[in-house]
Amino acid sequence: MSRSISLELIKNEIRNIPDFPTPGIQFKDITTVLKQADLFSFLVDTLAEIFQDKGITKIACIESRGFILGGALAGKIGAGFVPIRKPGKLPAETLRREYSLEYGTDAIEIHKDAIIPGDVVLLHDDLLATGGTASAAVALLKGLDPSKICLSFLCELDFLEGRKHLQEYEVSSLIHF
Amino acid sequence: MSRSISLELIKNEIRNIPDFPTPGIQFKDITTVLKQADLFSFLVDTLAEIFQDKGITKIACIESRGFILGGALAGKIGAGFVPIRKPGKLPAETLRREYSLEYGTDAIEIHKDAIIPGDVVLLHDDLLATGGTASAAVALLKGLDPSKICLSFLCELDFLEGRKHLQEYEVSSLIHF
Repeated sequence: MSRSISLELIKNEIRNIPDFPTPGIQFKDITTVLKQADLFSFLVDTLAEIFQDKGITKIACIESRGFILGGALAGKIGAGFVPIRKPGKLPAETLRREYSLEYGTDAIEIHKDAIIPGDVVLLHDDLLATGGTASAAVALLKGLDPSKICLSFLCELDFLEGRKHLQEYEVSSLIHF
Repeated sequence: MSRSISLELIKNEIRNIPDFPTPGIQFKDITTVLKQADLFSFLVDTLAEIFQDKGITKIACIESRGFILGGALAGKIGAGFVPIRKPGKLPAETLRREYSLEYGTDAIEIHKDAIIPGDVVLLHDDLLATGGTASAAVALLKGLDPSKICLSFLCELDFLEGRKHLQEYEVSSLIHF
């Protein structure tokens, strides 16, 4: 028996965890959605409908939750998969980009040979919050000179206005908080 | 123009990185394969052929490289996706399992509500080496009482004999070193 699935239903299935990982943060736990086969398939199909005709050659995904739907989407639309990872995880020559957190800085890396000129790259992550990580990831990608970059998120926290930092790009989020 | 793809070709495309992350380790870098759309699709299709008729309800994937093909496979065969993560990353109630490394110990966690009795679970990771992580992951899964567990790896380092620790289970690896 199959149920009627919508993004609204999926939004309601996302679990809110107060004060995780730090006090004051309302963490959006998507594991409650991902573990349900029909909801997971619906998300992959929905992303594929949006992106399958855009000529995307590679999906660059941010470690580690971005790997999940990003990997599934790459398989579905026939794109290559490129990981963007925490420092020290990628074994070959990398580009690195630091970015600010509320306290201190963090950094992400990409292999220098991950993207070639002419690639049309979709950057995917599970969540767009302040846009700090996404902006750093876009900067990394730009350093490798693709033809085009567009962005995909499962969830977007609209009140944090992360999208303001990404105005040059097409940004798609399936679920808004 | 499409080329003739085989697991042998893919094995040859995996990049060997000597002395990473520590001296003496020959790291198998699969990013050189994942970024090639046709090779990525071939791997997802090959995994799907093996597992699509086994009644798998959930694919439990080990952070973070296991998320990539595991996520793609879950989308392809219509299974739910369950992350097994490093300590402190999963926000709700978890089971935790420690395991030995060459020096010291590490641990992994799974959400207690990730698996329900009756689930048929495929555990997926990119690499089977000594089997320490895989054994710990199987122990976590067993603690949640699924009907059946089987295991899938992209690569297996045969000389480390990790499979010896998993003799009760069906273990499938696509590529052997």
